[in-house]
Amino acid sequence: MMFKSDNCAPALPEVMDAVVEANQGFQSSYGDDEMMEEVSALVRAEFEAPEAAVYLVSTGTAANALALSTLARPWDTIFCTPLAHIHIDECHAPEFYTGGGKLTLVGEKDKMTPEALEAAIIGWTKGDVHTSQRGPLALTQVTERGRIYSLEELRALTRVAKAHGLTAHMDGARFANAMVSLGCSAAEMTWKAGIDAVSFGGTKNGCMGVEGVIFFNPEHAWEFELRRKRGAHLFSKHRYLSAQMLGYLRNDAWKKAAAATNAKAARMISGLRDAPEFEFLFEPAANMIFATLPRRIHRDLQAAGARYEMHGPFDGPEDERIGMRLVVGWSVDEADIDRFVEIASGKI
Amino acid sequence: MMFKSDNCAPALPEVMDAVVEANQGFQSSYGDDEMMEEVSALVRAEFEAPEAAVYLVSTGTAANALALSTLARPWDTIFCTPLAHIHIDECHAPEFYTGGGKLTLVGEKDKMTPEALEAAIIGWTKGDVHTSQRGPLALTQVTERGRIYSLEELRALTRVAKAHGLTAHMDGARFANAMVSLGCSAAEMTWKAGIDAVSFGGTKNGCMGVEGVIFFNPEHAWEFELRRKRGAHLFSKHRYLSAQMLGYLRNDAWKKAAAATNAKAARMISGLRDAPEFEFLFEPAANMIFATLPRRIHRDLQAAGARYEMHGPFDGPEDERIGMRLVVGWSVDEADIDRFVEIASGKI
Amino acid sequence: MMFKSDNCAPALPEVMDAVVEANQGFQSSYGDDEMMEEVSALVRAEFEAPEAAVYLVSTGTAANALALSTLARPWDTIFCTPLAHIHIDECHAPEFYTGGGKLTLVGEKDKMTPEALEAAIIGWTKGDVHTSQRGPLALTQVTERGRIYSLEELRALTRVAKAHGLTAHMDGARFANAMVSLGCSAAEMTWKAGIDAVSFGGTKNGCMGVEGVIFFNPEHAWEFELRRKRGAHLFSKHRYLSAQMLGYLRNDAWKKAAAATNAKAARMISGLRDAPEFEFLFEPAANMIFATLPRRIHRDLQAAGARYEMHGPFDGPEDERIGMRLVVGWSVDEADIDRFVEIASGKI
Amino acid sequence: MMFKSDNCAPALPEVMDAVVEANQGFQSSYGDDEMMEEVSALVRAEFEAPEAAVYLVSTGTAANALALSTLARPWDTIFCTPLAHIHIDECHAPEFYTGGGKLTLVGEKDKMTPEALEAAIIGWTKGDVHTSQRGPLALTQVTERGRIYSLEELRALTRVAKAHGLTAHMDGARFANAMVSLGCSAAEMTWKAGIDAVSFGGTKNGCMGVEGVIFFNPEHAWEFELRRKRGAHLFSKHRYLSAQMLGYLRNDAWKKAAAATNAKAARMISGLRDAPEFEFLFEPAANMIFATLPRRIHRDLQAAGARYEMHGPFDGPEDERIGMRLVVGWSVDEADIDRFVEIASGKI
Repeated sequence: MMFKSDNCAPALPEVMDAVVEANQGFQSSYGDDEMMEEVSALVRAEFEAPEAAVYLVSTGTAANALALSTLARPWDTIFCTPLAHIHIDECHAPEFYTGGGKLTLVGEKDKMTPEALEAAIIGWTKGDVHTSQRGPLALTQVTERGRIYSLEELRALTRVAKAHGLTAHMDGARFANAMVSLGCSAAEMTWKAGIDAVSFGGTKNGCMGVEGVIFFNPEHAWEFELRRKRGAHLFSKHRYLSAQMLGYLRNDAWKKAAAATNAKAARMISGLRDAPEFEFLFEPAANMIFATLPRRIHRDLQAAGARYEMHGPFDGPEDERIGMRLVVGWSVDEADIDRFVEIASGKI
Repeated sequence: MMFKSDNCAPALPEVMDAVVEANQGFQSSYGDDEMMEEVSALVRAEFEAPEAAVYLVSTGTAANALALSTLARPWDTIFCTPLAHIHIDECHAPEFYTGGGKLTLVGEKDKMTPEALEAAIIGWTKGDVHTSQRGPLALTQVTERGRIYSLEELRALTRVAKAHGLTAHMDGARFANAMVSLGCSAAEMTWKAGIDAVSFGGTKNGCMGVEGVIFFNPEHAWEFELRRKRGAHLFSKHRYLSAQMLGYLRNDAWKKAAAATNAKAARMISGLRDAPEFEFLFEPAANMIFATLPRRIHRDLQAAGARYEMHGPFDGPEDERIGMRLVVGWSVDEADIDRFVEIASGKI
Repeated sequence: MMFKSDNCAPALPEVMDAVVEANQGFQSSYGDDEMMEEVSALVRAEFEAPEAAVYLVSTGTAANALALSTLARPWDTIFCTPLAHIHIDECHAPEFYTGGGKLTLVGEKDKMTPEALEAAIIGWTKGDVHTSQRGPLALTQVTERGRIYSLEELRALTRVAKAHGLTAHMDGARFANAMVSLGCSAAEMTWKAGIDAVSFGGTKNGCMGVEGVIFFNPEHAWEFELRRKRGAHLFSKHRYLSAQMLGYLRNDAWKKAAAATNAKAARMISGLRDAPEFEFLFEPAANMIFATLPRRIHRDLQAAGARYEMHGPFDGPEDERIGMRLVVGWSVDEADIDRFVEIASGKI
Repeated sequence: MMFKSDNCAPALPEVMDAVVEANQGFQSSYGDDEMMEEVSALVRAEFEAPEAAVYLVSTGTAANALALSTLARPWDTIFCTPLAHIHIDECHAPEFYTGGGKLTLVGEKDKMTPEALEAAIIGWTKGDVHTSQRGPLALTQVTERGRIYSLEELRALTRVAKAHGLTAHMDGARFANAMVSLGCSAAEMTWKAGIDAVSFGGTKNGCMGVEGVIFFNPEHAWEFELRRKRGAHLFSKHRYLSAQMLGYLRNDAWKKAAAATNAKAARMISGLRDAPEFEFLFEPAANMIFATLPRRIHRDLQAAGARYEMHGPFDGPEDERIGMRLVVGWSVDEADIDRFVEIASGKI
């Protein structure tokens, strides 16, 4: 019963097969391998963006920090939420890569509204050299609390950014889960909604370690290439990044995996809705659940072998409610889900 | 006939098998996977360094830049050769990661002598705040021109560094090829020779993309961990780095591969020695050959499908000597070697 | 009627005389001038800190950014208020000088409480490599809204910092005004209250452009010297920084100036308290006043030649209340104060 | 007999008078003072550059590092000589301000030739992401060894830079001495010779601490303003920088001072030419002399109170030749010069 993170899961068979398949013969290095051309073509087709610049890196933090530093100058502030991965979970990678940029925290928790964004943009800068200058908007989709911006919400937010001449970046670490949940196309969730650059997550949804970085305006491409190399993120045997992404994209493997994962999560959510003592902290929309349970039920779960993030100490009053995060990885068993739900429901 | 680079080769079967084997079940992320413990144990055993801190990253540039930035402060200068990979081939990654450090070029080409190092250290700094402060010594083994420092040479160089209180780093992108060529142990070529930290290359000798970073004094370990994360080089699905390194280390796969590769290179070198118009620029010691040939023979080679770095234009006078680099990757065919030698010898 | 900023004022006669006096003969450069020794001795005596390391730079932002970067590593977050000068008014100098550090905003507006600080320290970091590491506490005294931390408040805040092993920095751009207002010694307001390093402001209280940086633990001194030079803040003709500070410190010129300025401010505050439509936003404690007035009175003031920061548009409804900042510089005329009060009171 | 450095001298009376004169009344801060307008107008007139962007900072290192970081991106290399101040004497300020830029050392010692520059530009980069990208040319005029580039030499060098699309910066710490020596105009020595940005030195030639930064193409002006603030080099009481520069420029004070200083230096050079044991290392062209003398004469000089940089130990064989640097500051006495010459000639 492993619900700790989607990065505890292995790679999809389609991805691993592509890697194994790629492991023969010679290939040009540093991104000039043949598979990369195929990857670019597939990405451009999916995103209906024939001009897009497409790059691969091996971690989500690299994708975010490199993309944002291409969009933001050192004296710019990036507008994100207080729970944004780039703020909380990247050990200052964005500040490092931008050369001392800042993050301005907008709204409450993991989502922002156009009003809060407008207020932050206007409220922050004085138009002189003393304060930060206005930098890009950075959104996470699926958000860090498992929620999803609707297309309308995305459009409204990027509209505010554009009105101030700002670009917009999407941290799509769980891009596929969001897209499948919204039932929209990759284009609709990105450039058609005003997004300029996206970290197109592969790792969490079934790759070993690969993330795309896509710029819909290819103007900054060469600078990104220099930033990637200087950041030590350009792979010599790049074929293994290409192969992963190829296996991921080919035959819609990525969409199928996300759909299957979301379905498993939906089964879990639905079961937990009926658990008398289970309280959702956020309405879940994809494959993450934030909730609370009394400590005694946590103990039952852990004793039964369930693994997940518990946001409080294991010891304490029996009935005290303790927060938790459950992530349904693609490889989670339905039987494990059902067993978890039963215990959480107090049925065992 | 592919002699372009060892990074055009695929991964060793032992490495790929380990990766495939690792692709099941759940694993803790960010370096807490079970295989990583095995990797650390194997590295410590190989290097006879039970206290060593061992880390994995995915590129050689990351290994170098992160290791050097752990050893050097922003106002330090790193002593390296004019042909050092960190100077020529990393797009300022060392300067970026050190926060504005400098590289002081010592000696001629790819090797330095103790005398040149001593002169550079003494000649450079004035002991005040105006010039650079003295930072680590950085050596590459196998060097960028395919040569190898003997153990005595290494010891003499690090002795100079130590006398000035400086640490020493080894860029071991081709660590195994050098070690096998010297017939020494990993410990002898590193800490026993005065090296404090090493980039322990895996990629070129048969991994997909993994390099170890080893600190024999584990004091800087926590700082390295922060630098790795901040540089976006900490893998979430770290198991795939661990697995590669495990497959590489287990059963001496790495030594066998390097020995086999060096043997192939020796066959090529020996053949080329008899080629009447082939002139070595450096005495080769591992799997790289730097030489010149008349243009007409280059044309014959290229026409026959040989691929390698040619250091001059394809067009020009027939008899003009043009420089070249040949790298024997682990997967190169002996038949290709023999054929190359024949053409280069003018026998075909 | 100039109340825009204390940096619109000229230098004190004592400071200018010292500069003129220093303008003869040869002097060693880069801080080795004879006056600097006198400055260090005077500072150490005032602060009862015979071991303190004392440096001079020319801007307050340099003092803050260099001091904080000496205390904080690139992955540390600095705890300050949302209105801190280092956050709002330094164009990312702290982020730049720390190499990508972060600022964590504590409390509301310009002051923080020990509880808020404790909550921020505990709430922020997870003790792993993903989030920021905990860096120094940064307080401003006089605060950015003209208030003052009592010695007890300072001690309570630094006690929280110390309990977590964190250092404390004081931005003392208006150090003298605060000290005079509290009626305490320089030592009491700094190291005796748990402060480790202080930006000892000279410019606003009557210098041309000089700020001291004082480390009570001289251990980081050499690093500071390198940071100062590397930041291009080491003056060649350092004598002119020394001379300013000497004129400022000698014969208690700095305390007398601050006392006189605070007295003028008190006269103004007292007068404005009786102004029927004048509303203080913060209880003023030194030489800054934050308040609101109806727009029509602003118009009267501006028409009469009063100059100050107005936090809203000049045009709009007559009776709308508009925010304002008044700063009483040392050279402000009492007659101007009285006239301003009269107009603000609607008496003219 | 003080010949240590021109930064051991005081400020010109014209400069100090202007500062004293400026010390009254209120002035807008941060560069909006009235004097700055006058300074800009004077600079633009002198340089015949009505569109030029003109800024003031307080140190030469700040001028250089801020100007170069405006011209060079983090992955660019700056072409300068091995003895360039930016390489030897700025504690990595250029690397820090450019965010990890590199310096490529061209030529021998303190001057470069067009051929050496061409070779360095072509030889360095491979046009891919691995090596440095090509950044600005950086020349020092007067050079660090007291020599001067002729206008023809300047034009030939910038012609090479322009042919490769590179900009050119002049470190004019001793701008006036060079200009007076060449007998040319400020425009001729800068933009008419292909220079894009200049650090226009004031400090060494008689200011307290002020340097202009001039961009002939004002396009990068706003970025420079942000860099200046972020580097903590924007003065609040900017009037004191303006006043210095105003006193320096008004009535040609700067040219007169440089002419007088050069004349004194010429007197010294002429005297030393006849000193039997004095050997010039470089043909002096302005106010710096690099030479050698036997140790016994150094001893005589030092015993008589002469102060200058001696490039070797005071103790050792009597007749060993020891290097030295003499700098004639504007305030040096002719009597001291004559006495120095006499002792150096062995006449005393």
